[in-house]
Amino acid sequence: MNEHIKTKTMEWNGDELILIDQRYLPLEETYVTCKNHIEVADSIRDMVVRGAPAIGATAGFGMAIASSEFESLDKKTYVEKMKKAEELLASTRPTAVNLFWALKRMSKIIDENIEKTNLNELTRLLKKEALEIAYDDIKINRKMGQNGAKLLKNGDTVLTHCNAGALATVDYGTALGVIRAAIEDGKKISVYADETRPYLQGARLTVWELVQDGIETTLISDNMAGWVMKQGKINAVIVGADRIAANGDVANKIGTYSVAILAKKHGIPFYVAAPLSTIDLETPTGEEIPIEERNRNEVRYCHKSQLVDDSINVYNPAFDVTPNDLVTAIITEKGVVKDNYKTELPKLFE
Amino acid sequence: MNEHIKTKTMEWNGDELILIDQRYLPLEETYVTCKNHIEVADSIRDMVVRGAPAIGATAGFGMAIASSEFESLDKKTYVEKMKKAEELLASTRPTAVNLFWALKRMSKIIDENIEKTNLNELTRLLKKEALEIAYDDIKINRKMGQNGAKLLKNGDTVLTHCNAGALATVDYGTALGVIRAAIEDGKKISVYADETRPYLQGARLTVWELVQDGIETTLISDNMAGWVMKQGKINAVIVGADRIAANGDVANKIGTYSVAILAKKHGIPFYVAAPLSTIDLETPTGEEIPIEERNRNEVRYCHKSQLVDDSINVYNPAFDVTPNDLVTAIITEKGVVKDNYKTELPKLFE
Repeated sequence: MNEHIKTKTMEWNGDELILIDQRYLPLEETYVTCKNHIEVADSIRDMVVRGAPAIGATAGFGMAIASSEFESLDKKTYVEKMKKAEELLASTRPTAVNLFWALKRMSKIIDENIEKTNLNELTRLLKKEALEIAYDDIKINRKMGQNGAKLLKNGDTVLTHCNAGALATVDYGTALGVIRAAIEDGKKISVYADETRPYLQGARLTVWELVQDGIETTLISDNMAGWVMKQGKINAVIVGADRIAANGDVANKIGTYSVAILAKKHGIPFYVAAPLSTIDLETPTGEEIPIEERNRNEVRYCHKSQLVDDSINVYNPAFDVTPNDLVTAIITEKGVVKDNYKTELPKLFE
Repeated sequence: MNEHIKTKTMEWNGDELILIDQRYLPLEETYVTCKNHIEVADSIRDMVVRGAPAIGATAGFGMAIASSEFESLDKKTYVEKMKKAEELLASTRPTAVNLFWALKRMSKIIDENIEKTNLNELTRLLKKEALEIAYDDIKINRKMGQNGAKLLKNGDTVLTHCNAGALATVDYGTALGVIRAAIEDGKKISVYADETRPYLQGARLTVWELVQDGIETTLISDNMAGWVMKQGKINAVIVGADRIAANGDVANKIGTYSVAILAKKHGIPFYVAAPLSTIDLETPTGEEIPIEERNRNEVRYCHKSQLVDDSINVYNPAFDVTPNDLVTAIITEKGVVKDNYKTELPKLFE
C-alpha cells in the first residue's frame, strides 16, 4: 500500500498530517501542519477539520503520530502515554461516533502487537492502520455513492444541509458522494445548499467543492429550505450523519431535523448517506446520543462579523436528532436500507 | 394633536424625518436624516427602515416632505410632481401592503383638498395625515397587544422570527407588542428569537429591543427552531406580516413558512399579529402576493463578512407565504380571528 495520501482534506507524508484549514475556506486557502498528537487534537476540537469520517481518519493519524512521539520510551510508559493520547483525541468532539470507532481500531493494533513487537515496528503498524482507515474511507464513499446514485433521476435537484462532501471525509464525500456518483452515471443533477449557520459549512465548504467540480449549485439561507421545497424546486434531500443509532435515528448538523420535517411535509424523500462506521449499534435510539453545545460566540458572530453583544443569551446545539420515521432511506457502502432500521441495520454488519 | 413624534424607530420634527439606521444596529447606533422625498424612498429601499407598519408611516412622511418641496409650484405641476413622488415611494418595496395603504391615505388628502385650498395649507394637511398614521400605529399596536396577550399564559416562552417589534412599527410592535402587553398584564414571558438570515433582523433588532426592555431573550440560528420546539421549549410562535391575503394566507419574512410547518408538527400555536392596514382584501390568496427578491450579496455576505465568492449562484427571496391552514389565529386591533379567514377578515373592516 501507498505510504502517503493526499486529498483536498488532508495530506499524510509519513510523519506529519497536513490539514486544509476549513475554518477559513473558501476565501482563504491555508493549511495546518500537525507534528504531534496534541496539534491533531486541537485541529479536531477547533474545527480545522470536521465531518464525521474526516474526524475519524484524522484521529487515526493522531494515534500514529503519538506512537512516533513515544516509541523511544519503555513499553509500560509507552502504553500509558498512548492511553492518554487516545483519551485526549476522544475528548475533542462528543457526537460523531467515527472518532471513537477509529480510535478503537488504532488501540486494537496496540493491544494485539504490544507484546510481540518493538515500538518502532508498532509505530509502523499504526501508520499502516491509519492509512488503511483513510484509503478505506475513499473506497467506502465511492461504493456508497454508487448505491445511492440509483435513488436519483436524471434532472433531479437535491437539497443538502451542512457539508457531507469531500471535505467531511478523506475524499469524495458521503451525501455529496451520492451526487457525484449520479453525475458520473451520466445524470444531470443540480444542488441547493443550505448555508448552515452558525458555522456555515454549507456556504463555505459545500458550495466551494461542488463549484470546483462544475456541479450547478445554488446557495440559500437555512430558512429558505421550506419555501424552495414549496415551489417544487427540490426532488430529494441528501445529508450525512454524525451518528446513527441502532433504531435509525440520525444525529447530524443542527437544522437537519427541521429539513427532514419540511421534506416530509412536501413529499420529498429524505436520504441519509453514511458509512457503517457512523452507525452505532450500541446506542439504541437518538435519545442516548450526546449533543455537543458549542461556544455561544459562534451564534453571536457570523464568520468574522460580530452581530450582537457578547452578553446576549444564546443556545448553540451543534447537532440535532432526526427520528427514524422521517428518514426515507439510509445509504451505506453495504446497501440502501429503507425502513425497519432496527432489524435491517445490524444485518449490514454481518 | 402633537406636531412632532419621537420613538425608537423615527423622529418627525415637523420638517424632516430622522430614522434610526437599522442596517447597523445593534453595535452601531446611527441616524439618517431625510430632508426630501428621494431620501425617504432611498431609506425604505435600502432598509434603513423596514417592517411593514414602519414602512407605511415612513412613506406617509415622505409624501408630506414632497409636498413641502413642491408647494411653491403651480397646482398642475404640484399634482404631477406629487404623483411622481408617490410612484417613487411605491416602487421601493413590493411586498408590504402598508406602503400602498399609507400612500393611498396621503393621496386621498391631495385629491380631496387640491381644489379648495392653497398648497401651503395642503402641506399642513399632509403633515397632519402622516402624523396621524404614525400616532394611530402606536394606538393600534397597543390594542392589538391587549387582544393578543390573552392567548399567552404566565410562564410561556414564545418563538418569534424576524423583527415585528417597535423597530418594525412606529413603536411598541405587532408580534413583540403582544409579548409586551402580556408582560404588562403581569405574565412572565420569555422569548426565543430566530436570527433571521440573510438580513439578521432577529439577531440585530429583536434581541436588541427586547433586551432593552428587560425581556428574557435567547438568540438562536434559524435552523435551530425545530430542535428547540422538539425539546418542549416553545409554547407559542408569534410573527408579524407584510401582507395578509383575503383568505388568511400570510406573506412575511422568508423562513416564516418553515417555522409555521415546524409549529404545526409540534402542536404549537402559530399566531400572526398585524394591523388591518396589513390585510389586503383585494389580494384573494397568497398566490397573488408579489415576493421581492433582493440582492444576492445579502446571502453571499453575512453582515460585514463575505462568505463566498461574488460569482456563486444565490436565491434570495425576501418573503414567503404561509398558507392559512398553518395559521392558528390572526391578531388585529379589532380582535382575534381564528379560522374561517375568508368570511371573518372582511368583517373586521365593517
